[in-house]
Amino acid sequence: MILFLIIYDITNDKLRNRIASTLKDYGLERIQYSAFIGELKRYQLNSLVIDIKKLLREIPMEEGERVRNVQIYPIPEISRRGRIEISFKDGKLREYRGDSTRGKERVEIL
Amino acid sequence: MILFLIIYDITNDKLRNRIASTLKDYGLERIQYSAFIGELKRYQLNSLVIDIKKLLREIPMEEGERVRNVQIYPIPEISRRGRIEISFKDGKLREYRGDSTRGKERVEIL
Repeated sequence: MILFLIIYDITNDKLRNRIASTLKDYGLERIQYSAFIGELKRYQLNSLVIDIKKLLREIPMEEGERVRNVQIYPIPEISRRGRIEISFKDGKLREYRGDSTRGKERVEIL
Repeated sequence: MILFLIIYDITNDKLRNRIASTLKDYGLERIQYSAFIGELKRYQLNSLVIDIKKLLREIPMEEGERVRNVQIYPIPEISRRGRIEISFKDGKLREYRGDSTRGKERVEIL
């Protein structure tokens, strides 16, 4: 199993939804609206790439459609664990800072 | 220098543009509408995190704003080189497949 970070830039709503549900079907975890993460076996990766290519090719282009781009990065577990995540919700700034052992979360209430 | 993959999920147009121009100012390369990649020194990373927190905190919330989330992944060079990238433009499906030595691009004209 290898860990993958998958990001996509897709303007067509139908295509974007189909890509998201495909990634979900492969057991990947949604970490942002247009980003998933998770482990895949080599044969699953190959099958996923085939599925993505099929969707990008077959869903009809829309008027004014800008881009269809999917990027799949194999990353080590330490890249996930060592990430920095900053979010702001309900007046609270949250910062997660991973390190080599475990992450710590800090919540700043404004 | 460490390589970072930075992805953001931001619904507020003003904030998203400010985040993008900040990442550009740090010399990072835009690889998708909401994703940048590039090398940073440790002190630059720290300064960038401060800048992002400031923006997330200070740009006023809009009516119906959904999310403000930024994730920064430290990745090894091999993750960038070993990526798979699939895109579709002007009736052409492009597939880039990296490997441990160099990437190869395949263009499929439909």
